[in-house]
Amino acid sequence: MKKEILELFDNTYPDRDYTIEIVNPEFTSVCPITGLPDFGTIIIRYVPDKSCIELKSLKYYFLEFRNAGIFYENITNRILDDLVALLKPRSLSVITEWKARGGITETVTVNYCAKS
Amino acid sequence: MKKEILELFDNTYPDRDYTIEIVNPEFTSVCPITGLPDFGTIIIRYVPDKSCIELKSLKYYFLEFRNAGIFYENITNRILDDLVALLKPRSLSVITEWKARGGITETVTVNYCAKS
Amino acid sequence: MKKEILELFDNTYPDRDYTIEIVNPEFTSVCPITGLPDFGTIIIRYVPDKSCIELKSLKYYFLEFRNAGIFYENITNRILDDLVALLKPRSLSVITEWKARGGITETVTVNYCAKS
Amino acid sequence: MKKEILELFDNTYPDRDYTIEIVNPEFTSVCPITGLPDFGTIIIRYVPDKSCIELKSLKYYFLEFRNAGIFYENITNRILDDLVALLKPRSLSVITEWKARGGITETVTVNYCAKS
Amino acid sequence: MKKEILELFDNTYPDRDYTIEIVNPEFTSVCPITGLPDFGTIIIRYVPDKSCIELKSLKYYFLEFRNAGIFYENITNRILDDLVALLKPRSLSVITEWKARGGITETVTVNYCAKS
Amino acid sequence: MKKEILELFDNTYPDRDYTIEIVNPEFTSVCPITGLPDFGTIIIRYVPDKSCIELKSLKYYFLEFRNAGIFYENITNRILDDLVALLKPRSLSVITEWKARGGITETVTVNYCAKS
Amino acid sequence: MKKEILELFDNTYPDRDYTIEIVNPEFTSVCPITGLPDFGTIIIRYVPDKSCIELKSLKYYFLEFRNAGIFYENITNRILDDLVALLKPRSLSVITEWKARGGITETVTVNYCAKS
Amino acid sequence: MKKEILELFDNTYPDRDYTIEIVNPEFTSVCPITGLPDFGTIIIRYVPDKSCIELKSLKYYFLEFRNAGIFYENITNRILDDLVALLKPRSLSVITEWKARGGITETVTVNYCAKS
Amino acid sequence: MKKEILELFDNTYPDRDYTIEIVNPEFTSVCPITGLPDFGTIIIRYVPDKSCIELKSLKYYFLEFRNAGIFYENITNRILDDLVALLKPRSLSVITEWKARGGITETVTVNYCAKS
Amino acid sequence: MKKEILELFDNTYPDRDYTIEIVNPEFTSVCPITGLPDFGTIIIRYVPDKSCIELKSLKYYFLEFRNAGIFYENITNRILDDLVALLKPRSLSVITEWKARGGITETVTVNYCAKS
Repeated sequence: MKKEILELFDNTYPDRDYTIEIVNPEFTSVCPITGLPDFGTIIIRYVPDKSCIELKSLKYYFLEFRNAGIFYENITNRILDDLVALLKPRSLSVITEWKARGGITETVTVNYCAKS
Repeated sequence: MKKEILELFDNTYPDRDYTIEIVNPEFTSVCPITGLPDFGTIIIRYVPDKSCIELKSLKYYFLEFRNAGIFYENITNRILDDLVALLKPRSLSVITEWKARGGITETVTVNYCAKS
Repeated sequence: MKKEILELFDNTYPDRDYTIEIVNPEFTSVCPITGLPDFGTIIIRYVPDKSCIELKSLKYYFLEFRNAGIFYENITNRILDDLVALLKPRSLSVITEWKARGGITETVTVNYCAKS
Repeated sequence: MKKEILELFDNTYPDRDYTIEIVNPEFTSVCPITGLPDFGTIIIRYVPDKSCIELKSLKYYFLEFRNAGIFYENITNRILDDLVALLKPRSLSVITEWKARGGITETVTVNYCAKS
Repeated sequence: MKKEILELFDNTYPDRDYTIEIVNPEFTSVCPITGLPDFGTIIIRYVPDKSCIELKSLKYYFLEFRNAGIFYENITNRILDDLVALLKPRSLSVITEWKARGGITETVTVNYCAKS
Repeated sequence: MKKEILELFDNTYPDRDYTIEIVNPEFTSVCPITGLPDFGTIIIRYVPDKSCIELKSLKYYFLEFRNAGIFYENITNRILDDLVALLKPRSLSVITEWKARGGITETVTVNYCAKS
Repeated sequence: MKKEILELFDNTYPDRDYTIEIVNPEFTSVCPITGLPDFGTIIIRYVPDKSCIELKSLKYYFLEFRNAGIFYENITNRILDDLVALLKPRSLSVITEWKARGGITETVTVNYCAKS
Repeated sequence: MKKEILELFDNTYPDRDYTIEIVNPEFTSVCPITGLPDFGTIIIRYVPDKSCIELKSLKYYFLEFRNAGIFYENITNRILDDLVALLKPRSLSVITEWKARGGITETVTVNYCAKS
Repeated sequence: MKKEILELFDNTYPDRDYTIEIVNPEFTSVCPITGLPDFGTIIIRYVPDKSCIELKSLKYYFLEFRNAGIFYENITNRILDDLVALLKPRSLSVITEWKARGGITETVTVNYCAKS
Repeated sequence: MKKEILELFDNTYPDRDYTIEIVNPEFTSVCPITGLPDFGTIIIRYVPDKSCIELKSLKYYFLEFRNAGIFYENITNRILDDLVALLKPRSLSVITEWKARGGITETVTVNYCAKS
């Protein structure tokens, strides 16, 4: 899960607040207890400051989790931390929606807002 | 309906408010009047403080209601009470949506918010 | 349309505000002008105080309208008046959604809130 | 349930086989055992011979069942018998789809084909 | 487009604010430039004061637009003006949603609120 | 309803059987009894022989029905007759699906097949 | 799982083949290996001969499986055997559709046809 | 991407705030990196001041992007700038929703509000 | 529209009939009359013989139509001809579904089957 | 991709033909060309002879493909070969539906039938 994989490009319209939402319905990681794969959808919503996320590098970043054993709650917070550290956005949310296990689904939501 | 069945795990990100939503569309209990089964979906949404609910134990906790005769309104409030007592969350909601009986459906919603 | 048909049961959790929503998609009454049947969905949403509505008696109460000739707007307000008089809820809404007549559908919404 | 209510009009294109399907999602009758209303959708599909069903009279015919206590299976066969006797169609099907009672739904299908 | 076609009936519950929503998905008028028909859905939402709109007369009022050449924006505002002048409602909105032309759809929304 | 409005263009692939389906969900005509508009979807499915229907002229052909009073069954058969006479297709079907009147919908289907 | 619970009523139209389909989306049994509940939808489709299934008794028959540990495949075949033995239908199918376990769903279909 | 293509017409109701929403689900441009086409839906929502956008000219304006290589974020901001400069609206939003690339979708939202 | 762009790869299982269906919902070409873009979904379904279509080259092949003026019917037959000539499949179908123009949609279907 | 992982259990009803359908919407493998993950749904439909597939072992069998580089067409045929060799079913189908790559989706279907 090396966040160095992520690439940024310059925000051409930094004088204006606008929102970018990215949805990846093809996320998979591994349950740290059973070793079985988990499947989920990752939603990232942010207001860029100086930079935007390059989508292809984001795809490779998500790929780093493919064989990693990590809890839903921790994946969500970890993605937030990685993206905030790199992007320095004005605000950023991460929502992860997980496919049913034992008939039960879970969704985790975390929000970041830069202090102004 | 022993709430002792519920297990918790440490919240790794206690410095941050974030939301966990759990949906169980496979809940069943028994109508205390007719003795016939009721079927519903249970939605739990909370902001964890020190602990999070372990999903497998939650499944077993829900199972305790399988042969219990209890009203919709009381199940909903009872789950809230059990989870608040154990989890001590920053906030927690329970929503129960019930399949039609006599053509009529019911949804019960209750919210808890810790005093700050 | 005798509201005496309605039965109540004690609210076990009166110290707490919570919401009960009841949906009946199988309501029918009669148009007072044409004498032809109308079909609608009735949605009742309330915060109970001392009492809750018993669902089976509510079904029989709705049945009283089956052969009654009454306008959409008046049914909606009438149900609100009956339920508020009996239940004395903290708040209560009635929403009635009617199937198309002449290609046109209508929805009527009325809200009640007890003065605190 | 007087079938005399039904009116016909002449089929303008009797030299050709073609199909007419009529759907009434607003049918209601009464359960002969509980006395409570049943709600269903009636689908009629036929190839006309000399006559077609006039839709408004069909609506009034369906209305005759509104307060009649009769089983799903019998309503379906009864409508077939009434329509076949009057219309003398080349073929005719009646499908009745009933809303859930006790969580269980039923659909009844019966087909008629004139001997050629 | 004579608004005189519209008929009103007395609001039986004038002491209470409540909302009536009327939806007509079968509206058609003519494009003033191409002369070709436009198809749309008209949504009217209002809080009645002394009067309510009679639905059948509303249907005939809408019919007045069937062969009239008029822009989406002007139809929407015109309906608002006509209804406000006649109904004198506490508040009223008109929303018109138009089927695609050249692959592009349009929705126009206008709100009126009586000064209190 | 002049079928002369319809224009054809040459089928570039006459050596091969293939199917063209055209759907117009924006058809409107007038009920010959009430004078009120009817709304429907027209589906045409055909295997071309020497010619294909030009879509814009078909749109104008449908427009001819806008203010004509004619029954569902007759519109359907009439469109079939007009198109078969002009197009001389290998086979052709017309399906018309009508919006609810008095809560009841109707669909009419007619098929033509050239004798080989 | 006593099939004696099932009640029949006389088929009023035995001279005619017609089809009855019953759907119960609220079936639950227990996995014989894990002891955890399974949830499924049961579909029964049959052509009656002398008798029809009474729906309320069928509901009680399904209830017999609530705490029984039995495989999907065996439940499906068992229901077929019980119903064929009692009903002696002209034909009968049982389809069971099971909610996901480990992300995987299963559907089992079995058909019976009386020898003529 | 010449914005001169855009044509305006006079707002007939400038004394009133109302909202116009335009949706084009058939937008296509070219990825500046791969040279492959992108597909998206463009949503424009605005409160007109003196002028409204003429829809046909908007279609031609969108067409200018068909073979242009430009990033999602820049298209969105560019459309906002062009429309604000020309229309001088009271407020205007542009939302662009893009089809999946590598399984990932993106939505960009930007809002403009005239200073009052 | 050079079909040479298409690349094939060897069918690893030529001893067995199996079906490959490819769906491209992002196809666009140009109307030869108006010069405006058309948007459609292309569905290809085939039983391979010695070779299969490589998907990336198919994408580039579809791209050749982006700025070509060509009728719906001819695109469909042209794609069939190109693919049959190159692939020599056991059977192959092309279905093209086109977005509404003037409110009317069209679908064209053509099938090829190798003589055995 | 060791098929030895698969476990079977005895078919309790071998005297009867019946169908078992298994759907796994959480399948993932790796594209042999790009090394990027593919996501798909696997559908298996079979008539058992002496044995049935145990679902948990099937889950582990699918897991063997998680990091394997293999084409859609070959996965589909490979699963068929593995299951037929082990299960010796009366008939068996494998359908694989793949998420869009470059906007294009693919579905592969292969059927096996034991010679009788």
